Amino acid sequence: MSSFACPAPLSPGARVLLGHGSGGTLSADLVRELFLPRFASAELNRLTDAAVVELEGVRVAFTTDAFVVQPTFFPGADIGVLAVNGTVNDLAMMGARPSFLSAAFVLEEGLGLDALVSVVDSMAATADRAGVRLVTGDTKVVERGAADGLYIVTSGIGVVPDGIELGPEHIDVGHAVVVSGPVGSHGVAVMSRRAGIEFDVDVESDSMSLVPLVDSLLEVANVHCLRDATRGGLATVLCELADASGCAIDIDEPRVPVLEPVRSACATLGLDPLYVANEGVFVAVLDASDVAAALEALRAHAGGSAAALLGEVGAGTGVHLRTALGVSRPLRLLSGEQLPRIC
Amino acid sequence: MSSFACPAPLSPGARVLLGHGSGGTLSADLVRELFLPRFASAELNRLTDAAVVELEGVRVAFTTDAFVVQPTFFPGADIGVLAVNGTVNDLAMMGARPSFLSAAFVLEEGLGLDALVSVVDSMAATADRAGVRLVTGDTKVVERGAADGLYIVTSGIGVVPDGIELGPEHIDVGHAVVVSGPVGSHGVAVMSRRAGIEFDVDVESDSMSLVPLVDSLLEVANVHCLRDATRGGLATVLCELADASGCAIDIDEPRVPVLEPVRSACATLGLDPLYVANEGVFVAVLDASDVAAALEALRAHAGGSAAALLGEVGAGTGVHLRTALGVSRPLRLLSGEQLPRIC
Repeated sequence: MSSFACPAPLSPGARVLLGHGSGGTLSADLVRELFLPRFASAELNRLTDAAVVELEGVRVAFTTDAFVVQPTFFPGADIGVLAVNGTVNDLAMMGARPSFLSAAFVLEEGLGLDALVSVVDSMAATADRAGVRLVTGDTKVVERGAADGLYIVTSGIGVVPDGIELGPEHIDVGHAVVVSGPVGSHGVAVMSRRAGIEFDVDVESDSMSLVPLVDSLLEVANVHCLRDATRGGLATVLCELADASGCAIDIDEPRVPVLEPVRSACATLGLDPLYVANEGVFVAVLDASDVAAALEALRAHAGGSAAALLGEVGAGTGVHLRTALGVSRPLRLLSGEQLPRIC
Repeated sequence: MSSFACPAPLSPGARVLLGHGSGGTLSADLVRELFLPRFASAELNRLTDAAVVELEGVRVAFTTDAFVVQPTFFPGADIGVLAVNGTVNDLAMMGARPSFLSAAFVLEEGLGLDALVSVVDSMAATADRAGVRLVTGDTKVVERGAADGLYIVTSGIGVVPDGIELGPEHIDVGHAVVVSGPVGSHGVAVMSRRAGIEFDVDVESDSMSLVPLVDSLLEVANVHCLRDATRGGLATVLCELADASGCAIDIDEPRVPVLEPVRSACATLGLDPLYVANEGVFVAVLDASDVAAALEALRAHAGGSAAALLGEVGAGTGVHLRTALGVSRPLRLLSGEQLPRIC
């Protein structure tokens, strides 16, 4: 977490910083000061993973994500796997049944077509596994030096079944906060192959479709809100949920699941795993009485075996971390940019 | 239309060429050899401007487009105007009522925020005019030199009303082919501001929402297929329609509307206006008996005042251009890349 002074996004002469894409405070500034006032829409204002709109009485979740991860290929996944799972998961976080995806490619002239073929193969296999169909797309090519290999934007739509109402506005005091898996693996896997700082580590990206976990969870628990802990990591997502719900969230740090190699890689790199991006981990806010059933349901899945109760929703504001020593410290939004181009 | 030898897209060692983004033969090769076999989906196979999918019995058109136009600002429009109208028009071409858009931004570190503000202002105003709402989005930032200012990907959804069935499979011998406005203006307007070749010309981009024109047309004519003549221009779109319908299309060249300054700029630049991109022009295939009513309906709109009957659908294959001298010459798909990064 670098922290540095920077001008307000819309001050004269201000320029785009890497931190504007971090998912942290600068991203939030850009959304709040630039996008929200101009695109006045109730759905956008909710700042959920996907918008839920009505088409002829059918509630449809609709989402989009740009993927610029560098490098294109890394342990456990590649940009194509991320592009499919990321959009599928944004729909799943609204309780929607992901059905159809679009994909837009921005390709750099000179990119090896074998790399593109690998990525498209990954996308097709990942879409199959997630039970979605890619039904429309677009491809643009820019000159050498006007992109970095390839960027992919996926959008997705899916129906939100009747009776499902998820969102931070449903979070209330006394609810439990659960995490579905160990945090930080995706970010560490990508960094381990980043040009200039490659290192050996036995960690793979956690990218996967969260639909099966969400389905199992919704069957057994009264769930109020789901959020996948992507850019900015678990800490940033918890801060956003606290802010959007008008409640406090209190978390026990020792309960946060982190794989041992991720923990040691983060220690070496000076990173806080709470702020490292995930692509297959989500936070669920649910009735405290359903925690045991929720954990059992999540742990029945390979990707949910480390699911854990993190803490609870309380009165007040902000996120508070109770450390192993019993000290409580506030957890803030990521400021600046910890790991650029992680997804 | 440059024409040059290039390897089949998937041959060993092949690389991405600018022409793969042209909308012409190389784009078609990439789609046919790379994307279609991997993303087996009936909707994608139709290669229409938008996919039409069913959600709980509601027919929903769904589309995506990447915008990489260079420069960002040009006479009559900017990348934000294109990004909104382009996606709105892809939905309109399926007879859908465009309702909701998403926008994903890839920003280059160092981009002036004033430029981004202008673009977002344009998008908001254009969305208002087109009657659509932007409900979800994403922003990523890449390092200096890893993009060229900004790229925008918009996706859109809208309901296809009952009774509307548009697509090249409905084209048949005897149908009339109509164009909604003068061709080539968008491409010439962008090129006139392209670094290195700037020239003075009294031409503005034609970017606009085609929804009002389509609405008027559908009220008075039995329409079988609509296609907006974007990348690759009128010629490429006609070739695609002939190919997809299994029919021939015969066009009278002198009937093609081209504004005088566009005609002379194309002559100077060595461009064929039939292959220059448009952002506010579409081709309609309709019953021959409805041509007079269709032209009257289109001409009632400012953007449709030059609407013209181009020719008719015949037996056979391919597109044939009858010149002013009475000679018939075949019109081919754009090969290579005429004007890179035109949208």
